[in-house]
Parts: sequence; structure tokens; C-alpha cells
Amino acid sequence: MGNTATLTKLVIIGVGLIGGSFALALRNAGLVKHIVGIGRSQQNLHYALAHGIIDEIAIDLATALHNADMVLLAMPVGQTAHVMAQIATHLQANTIITDAGSTKQEIIAAARHLLPMQNRHHFVPGHPIAGTEESGAHAAQATLYASKHVILTPLPETSTDATEKVCQLWQACGAQVSIMSADEHDQVLAATSHLPHILAFTMMNHLRHNSSDLAHLLHFAGSGLRDFTRIASSSPEMWRDICLTNREILLQQIDKYLYELKLLRESLEKNDGNTLEEIFSQAQHARKKWLKNSH
Amino acid sequence: MGNTATLTKLVIIGVGLIGGSFALALRNAGLVKHIVGIGRSQQNLHYALAHGIIDEIAIDLATALHNADMVLLAMPVGQTAHVMAQIATHLQANTIITDAGSTKQEIIAAARHLLPMQNRHHFVPGHPIAGTEESGAHAAQATLYASKHVILTPLPETSTDATEKVCQLWQACGAQVSIMSADEHDQVLAATSHLPHILAFTMMNHLRHNSSDLAHLLHFAGSGLRDFTRIASSSPEMWRDICLTNREILLQQIDKYLYELKLLRESLEKNDGNTLEEIFSQAQHARKKWLKNSH
Repeated sequence: MGNTATLTKLVIIGVGLIGGSFALALRNAGLVKHIVGIGRSQQNLHYALAHGIIDEIAIDLATALHNADMVLLAMPVGQTAHVMAQIATHLQANTIITDAGSTKQEIIAAARHLLPMQNRHHFVPGHPIAGTEESGAHAAQATLYASKHVILTPLPETSTDATEKVCQLWQACGAQVSIMSADEHDQVLAATSHLPHILAFTMMNHLRHNSSDLAHLLHFAGSGLRDFTRIASSSPEMWRDICLTNREILLQQIDKYLYELKLLRESLEKNDGNTLEEIFSQAQHARKKWLKNSH
Repeated sequence: MGNTATLTKLVIIGVGLIGGSFALALRNAGLVKHIVGIGRSQQNLHYALAHGIIDEIAIDLATALHNADMVLLAMPVGQTAHVMAQIATHLQANTIITDAGSTKQEIIAAARHLLPMQNRHHFVPGHPIAGTEESGAHAAQATLYASKHVILTPLPETSTDATEKVCQLWQACGAQVSIMSADEHDQVLAATSHLPHILAFTMMNHLRHNSSDLAHLLHFAGSGLRDFTRIASSSPEMWRDICLTNREILLQQIDKYLYELKLLRESLEKNDGNTLEEIFSQAQHARKKWLKNSH
């Protein structure tokens, strides 16, 4: 497909950890001339402008999107459909639209409803599997995507050129890009990310509800609990949106996990040491094999 | 209570990560003259001898325990009662007996059954909350207990002097020592350690059972899942024993966690975003407060 795409004008809606890091990485790679930022917090946008993450704070959507090569939607996933509706009338036919949301099927359904076919030709849904429990432009870093996975889930009507261009830009950020269906994406992420977050949040609430003195209880907690619950420090708003937009798959994942936990509970209730050891061995083996393969 | 206790002869049964690190830390502090090691793996004991963790490999229990100031039981908790039965006839009246097991009520019940009153006067059950997913003498390190918690759960018949002596030795290893009842210990550890281990092991098995290609699925997993499941790399034998010896309390903890998870599932099923966000906020708040307090 020739040389890596370059962007004359990139519009980022939601200049936080994800959008801000994309801006910094593309700037470092020398692939973007002018970046316009849009967002709900003026304070955050002024920080991004002052720190060279963006070149301009948008005055209005029409001006911002005029002659834009690409627009990145990087707000919490629950707001994406609303923002898509707002930008729909201002989009030029050749502007590439991409997003960074953690769930993909619902935003694709929204795009089918809100974007004319000429814009859907240029819509490339994406999800960078990167981030920390931090948020906001001040957390943005040029190296956030180095060696991280980015999954693109193009629609049947998305043009190959648009997908290729978005792919090249993420690769220029240092990411490994994979392409899969939105359904497969949502299944994979429900299992490897959404469910563990649910379980970590639930662990903290379980401790809260079963202790008259939580500080005393946690005083004796070791590094195991600390690592296990790290993801429970993540943004409640973000995780509300992820859960609601991947609801059906996540409900299935919770039910299957409940079943697995009940099997273990049954072995413990029966004092069945052999089965317990076998359960733990299989889990330990699977984890060790995973770590070995990922190095 | 005067100067820190010193030991002329310390016997360690089970010279692994826990027993070996206790030996190295006391040696560094200059508080022990001679350390005798006992264990089921001769290879491990020879490693410990060659690396200065112990001074002598025991020939037999009677010789090893003759004139011992203290014996530390540091094998997997499921073997502790068996070992206690073996040493009972060889113990001198003034030898302090302590252990490092992760559960305390069951070993105290065993001691009541197996040790004469004169020995129970010198029995100080203990639990250092330290360790990694590694095991064996090669993993031992003198600094393992620095700033870590050690909980002692003396019996009503344990002498204050014996408890004080064990307390001083752990403090000399750099640990913070707390004293509580065995029941409170087992409740606190079930909530903050045993349950998270159960949930992490279950997560790996859930992924195994719900994927036709586990390697492909885990290929897209981020650091969140990696940290969440770190403790699922722990020893299956050790965790079988911990579960079985803290069975009733752990079953209650599992049931309460299941209840908490079902509450969240219900909010998700009802599409109740406000309740979900509230659930996540409370969990996030509790974790942030914990981390703030622990610095």
C-alpha cells in the first residue's frame, strides 16, 4: 500500500489518556501536521494545548471537521453514539472516522443508524488494548501504545484503503494491529478484560460489606490482594459504559464464571483434596504456559 | 523484656522460601549460632547447606531436637500435624515451638491433641504474610520479611516469655508483629488472601473452559489480567492445604462473594447504569483509600 499515511488535519474528540497518547505518538512519528482537540472539559483541553498534545481547541464542530483527514472518537464509550449523531451532519465524504472504544458491536449498530453510507465507507472501528487506571490529558504519553495490541473491526462496507490507513497509523505508534469481527472482539475482551474488572470491583465491595473495620482488615493484606485489585481503581463511568454496551456477552461470562466457582466450592465442601489440587494445577499450568508464550 | 533473644540451636523443618528466609534473616542479624535443617528433599537440603542457609542436615529427629532452643515448622500446612506427631516424643520441655502456616485454628487443634501441656506452654503459632509464587531454598532471601506483617496467635496456655521471644526474632527479621486470636487470623486471611487466590485460579480455569484456542484468546490480554491472575501461579499443593484447613470460613467467604457478584449481575441485567456506577465508585473509593493509608 505504499508509504505510511500522513495526516494534514486530525480531529480528536476526547483528549484524555487514549486520545492524547495517540496525538503524541503520531507527532513523534512525524505523521501529523495539525491536531484539533474537542472535549467536555476546557481545563483538560487547555492542558493539552499548553503541553503540545494538540495545536488548537475547536471553536465549533463544523469548523473543526472542515477538511479533516481523520477524526478519532476517544470519549467514554457510552457517549460515542451521541457524539456520532452530533458530527454526522458536518462530516465530509472522505474523512476517515475511527474510535478507541472498549466494546465494538454497539458502536457499529449506532454508526449504521447515524452515519450515511458515504461516511460508513470511511468508518474503521478500533480498540487499542492499552491504558492504565489513570485518565485525562496529563496521563497521556507518546509510548503508551508501544508493543500493545490494537484491534480493528471494520464493517463490510468499510473501504480497504480506510482500514489500511488506520492500521498504518497505529503501527506508527508502535502497536501490533489485528483485524477481527466486532463479535469476536467483544467476546475476547469480555473474557480477558471486562470480567476480571467486574471481579476485582466485586472483591473490594465484598471486603467492604464483610468487615466492621475495613482499614484494620486491609492492614494485613499482602501484595497478592494489591495486584488482584489494581484494576478496581479504574474509572467507574468508563466501566459502567463498557458493561452496558457489552451486556449480553458479559452476562454470559459472569454465569460461566459462577458455574466454575461453584464447581470449586463443591470440591471444598466435600473435602476433596485431590480435585482441589487438580483444579489449582490446571489453572497454574495455563498461566505459566501463557507467560512463557508471551516472552 | 530486655535484650533480643538469641538462639544457640535452631531447628528448621522445611527449608524452603519461608524457612530458608527466616534462617538467612536471623543469621544476618547475628542472632543464631547453629541451624539444623530437616526436610523431605535431600537435594533442597544440600542446596541450603552449600549456600549457608543451614549449618547441618539432620541425621534423625532425636539428635536434631536435642538441646534445641527453638523449632520452626515451615512445611506445607497439610503436613504440619503429621510432623508435630513425629517430633512430640523428642521435644525437650523448654524448646520453643513455632510455625509459619497460613491457617491457624487447625494446627492449634492438632497441638492440643498431640503436644503435652509442658510443650504447649512453649508453642507460639505464627504466620509471616510474605512470600512469592516461588518456592524452595533457592528462593530464600534475607530481606523477605522486611516491613512485612507477621501474625502470632498464642494459645491461652502459651507462656508470655515464649511469645515475646518469637516476636523479637521476627522483629529482628524486619517484620511488624501483631498478636490476635486464631479465629480472627483465619477470618482476616480468608478474606484478604485465600478468597482472592481461589478467584484467580478460577479465572484461569474459566478461560480454559470457554475457549477453543486459549493461546489466541490470551494473545490479546493486557496487563490487567496478568496482575489479576499472578497469584494463580502459586503452588497447587500449598493452596489445597490452605483451603482444606480453613474450609468452613472459606466456604462462607465464597458464598458472600457469590452474593455480591449476583447483586452486580442483577444491575447489569436490568440495564441499571446508575447502580452499576455506584457499585464501581464504592469499590474504587475503598481501594484508593487503602492505598493512601498504606503509604
